Amino acid sequence: MRIDLNSDLGESFGRWELGDDRALLSVVTSANVACGFHAGDPSVLRRTTADAKERGVAVGAHVGYRDLAGFGRRFLDVPPADLTNEVVYQLGALAAFTRLADDRIRYVKPHGALYNTIVHHEQQAAAVVEAVRAFDPDLPVLGLPGSRFLALAEQAGLRTYREAFADRAYTPDGVLVSRREPGAVLHDPAAIAERCLRIAQGLPVEAVDGTEIVIEADSLCVHGDSPGAVDIARAVAERLRAAGVAIAPFTQEAPAARGNA
Amino acid sequence: MRIDLNSDLGESFGRWELGDDRALLSVVTSANVACGFHAGDPSVLRRTTADAKERGVAVGAHVGYRDLAGFGRRFLDVPPADLTNEVVYQLGALAAFTRLADDRIRYVKPHGALYNTIVHHEQQAAAVVEAVRAFDPDLPVLGLPGSRFLALAEQAGLRTYREAFADRAYTPDGVLVSRREPGAVLHDPAAIAERCLRIAQGLPVEAVDGTEIVIEADSLCVHGDSPGAVDIARAVAERLRAAGVAIAPFTQEAPAARGNA
Amino acid sequence: MRIDLNSDLGESFGRWELGDDRALLSVVTSANVACGFHAGDPSVLRRTTADAKERGVAVGAHVGYRDLAGFGRRFLDVPPADLTNEVVYQLGALAAFTRLADDRIRYVKPHGALYNTIVHHEQQAAAVVEAVRAFDPDLPVLGLPGSRFLALAEQAGLRTYREAFADRAYTPDGVLVSRREPGAVLHDPAAIAERCLRIAQGLPVEAVDGTEIVIEADSLCVHGDSPGAVDIARAVAERLRAAGVAIAPFTQEAPAARGNA
Amino acid sequence: MRIDLNSDLGESFGRWELGDDRALLSVVTSANVACGFHAGDPSVLRRTTADAKERGVAVGAHVGYRDLAGFGRRFLDVPPADLTNEVVYQLGALAAFTRLADDRIRYVKPHGALYNTIVHHEQQAAAVVEAVRAFDPDLPVLGLPGSRFLALAEQAGLRTYREAFADRAYTPDGVLVSRREPGAVLHDPAAIAERCLRIAQGLPVEAVDGTEIVIEADSLCVHGDSPGAVDIARAVAERLRAAGVAIAPFTQEAPAARGNA
Repeated sequence: MRIDLNSDLGESFGRWELGDDRALLSVVTSANVACGFHAGDPSVLRRTTADAKERGVAVGAHVGYRDLAGFGRRFLDVPPADLTNEVVYQLGALAAFTRLADDRIRYVKPHGALYNTIVHHEQQAAAVVEAVRAFDPDLPVLGLPGSRFLALAEQAGLRTYREAFADRAYTPDGVLVSRREPGAVLHDPAAIAERCLRIAQGLPVEAVDGTEIVIEADSLCVHGDSPGAVDIARAVAERLRAAGVAIAPFTQEAPAARGNA
Repeated sequence: MRIDLNSDLGESFGRWELGDDRALLSVVTSANVACGFHAGDPSVLRRTTADAKERGVAVGAHVGYRDLAGFGRRFLDVPPADLTNEVVYQLGALAAFTRLADDRIRYVKPHGALYNTIVHHEQQAAAVVEAVRAFDPDLPVLGLPGSRFLALAEQAGLRTYREAFADRAYTPDGVLVSRREPGAVLHDPAAIAERCLRIAQGLPVEAVDGTEIVIEADSLCVHGDSPGAVDIARAVAERLRAAGVAIAPFTQEAPAARGNA
Repeated sequence: MRIDLNSDLGESFGRWELGDDRALLSVVTSANVACGFHAGDPSVLRRTTADAKERGVAVGAHVGYRDLAGFGRRFLDVPPADLTNEVVYQLGALAAFTRLADDRIRYVKPHGALYNTIVHHEQQAAAVVEAVRAFDPDLPVLGLPGSRFLALAEQAGLRTYREAFADRAYTPDGVLVSRREPGAVLHDPAAIAERCLRIAQGLPVEAVDGTEIVIEADSLCVHGDSPGAVDIARAVAERLRAAGVAIAPFTQEAPAARGNA
Repeated sequence: MRIDLNSDLGESFGRWELGDDRALLSVVTSANVACGFHAGDPSVLRRTTADAKERGVAVGAHVGYRDLAGFGRRFLDVPPADLTNEVVYQLGALAAFTRLADDRIRYVKPHGALYNTIVHHEQQAAAVVEAVRAFDPDLPVLGLPGSRFLALAEQAGLRTYREAFADRAYTPDGVLVSRREPGAVLHDPAAIAERCLRIAQGLPVEAVDGTEIVIEADSLCVHGDSPGAVDIARAVAERLRAAGVAIAPFTQEAPAARGNA
């Protein structure tokens, strides 16, 4: 039994630092690295990819809208053809730094508002899929189970992986409870760790209304940019290991990617 | 006898169009393609690299300072390590699009204020060289003869190529006359074409003070973003061909580059 | 009988020039001046406000989304409080330049996707209204008749003015035909001029389906950033004058604005 | 006997927070507020100006180069006319928010690389002076004693104020020791506080070489964006008050500024 832990990294920008990347890299097995459009600058990309390589953490491209002021958290109605090109641009930029680190991009995970949008937005979902396929069809994608993004990626022949959120409540339908609702975000490290263990074991967890649901996931997303977040990530990792669940990148057995190295 | 004609392309940005790229692509053999930091957006990069490939024009990375508002024409005192990373980022982004076009980056030519700065600025010159070397040591560079940039590139084991400017006056020392001086820019297509032919043939041309100098060049830079510029480029190409000088990319016989395809 | 002609100006940015501002300033009576978020840089604002003052053209603040790459033409889901502050910021920046020109902002007209969004988007419409009210409650707004923006502006006590589009087709309900539909944009200068005259005279014009509608307007919007656009603007102005319709800023009789001079 | 304490505020940007503004506002009497070019976004400007007004802290315009990625800390060779317009733009934007807070800009202090550049760079110094003069000739400026900036500002008829740096070492000539030199930055709160008291009292302090110099200052600059910085600021304020030195804005007795309210 095994699962992956992923987290957002490389979100600093120039003078502004965000998140405790070094601490997270000692906990997670996959790093979603910002590519410069919503966060991250070239020197941050350089350092983050080098540190991830050194710690054996798989690097994913955390592609987002071109919106530094909004940190990629605001929907932007980009025409699909432009969105494809913006994602390709980010993949190429990150690939240059994984190459310098003697590594390569292992997967793609959309960020923020783009992630949420392509759960249902057909055209933008297809645009992101097309970017990955055109850049490197051997590159897997990580996304929300049931999203249009994963469905279209599968249709396009991409390998798809599903993630669950360690610290978020779910509706009975397995959808995330909106952050605007009470109880949407969980805070107790022990409870979160226990919940993560059950997800990793394929056991049902409690939805926000008290019913039980099974959340299928190849990777658990833990956060690192808020106080206490690193503690939660550590608690999850320790609980999983204590229960005999191996923590390893979901991309580990994947066949060698073709071209972005 | 042969020479290359290069020009700046892909300098549009969003709603703003600049230069007659289609016309230039029918004249030049090397295209310096903006990478998004001083000009160019992802959709412009996509279109420009595809068009260049279709016309058989060699794509060079026209890397510049991160300064859209100044079009990369203002010196920016970037710390060398950051500059290296900014150039790597641009190379990676452009390489993604040349890959989509089933092509690859053939050379690197710094743009604008960066080009002028690294004629003499040791640290920034070394930073650009280090970026190219780290990204792909088989990638040649194009620059000003006598510049620190070309000297350091050569020391680092990069292949170097020299360019001359078709429409610019030179001092007796073979340095460009500053644009602020009278007579710095030449305007007569026939005179410019004749001058280019002499440079291609290795014959002396007149410096701004009337003395004669020999300008050694592997490539002639022609411009395309001002009225009449395309006409000048065409006049140069016609004059060269009429005199039996072949026009071909300076990168043509180069051994296959290693990794950015 | 009189009407205003307005057009978008000051849309250049750095090296990129857009539109024939000088020609337009000799035709229109109101200039929607970009404030730097979707187009326009400080030197463009300086020049445009000075030229408008010299020609006696009323300056309006053409406020937009913070999106240079998209020219403000893509919906951006900015939280309302942030949108209010972004509009205030733009108003302040433009007001500095009208002050330098011994002039002041005469009205506010949202640009592009923001203009279209607040036709129906209640929260963003209210956010823009709040920005104008907070900055200067004596500043009138120009918008689409029937829009939520004008309705909320009126409720907030702002003076509101309505505009019609010279070169756009309307549905029988008086709404603009989407640019994606055939026949959405009119091209014949003489026909456009005639149509503008009828609007100015309060007479019905033909909707896209052949029915007749009356479009009430205080100002006619003419464009200047496409080939032939200035010719259309001139044709409209000439036709109006020939028929005895005075062309004058809609803001002319307005009481003196309070504070932004 | 009295002196002013100033600090940089409003340097957050979007998701990125920087500095403990609330804590600093309870210590300093003048706030250098970033205007959006090197730091600060419209919502940060709104909040910072409102908070400053509430605490009775004088708001200064902290104008900088247009360089978010470099936080305004890298020299940018902006042509003087453009620099004037960029400073005017920032002044106008900030003035909109001080107006909303029923306040006004009280002074102008250039930021970072611009501050350092105009100590000696004649053209850029003149460009900043021209911006202030054109925007509001009653607006005073704060700068380094002996700088070209203050000299030119005085010639232009602006009121000028001098600042000293609480935590920086000085050469025997009264110039700041470069941050690259050992001992350039002081760290001991008690020693810094004692030194500030001597400056406020007009008494000599020790230069980096052990000689004694007198630093004339109307304001002491304390920092707030590093760990321990707020503690230093508090130690300085307490030491001054304990010795009977009043802490008050240097702009307090200034005649009412004319137009930017």
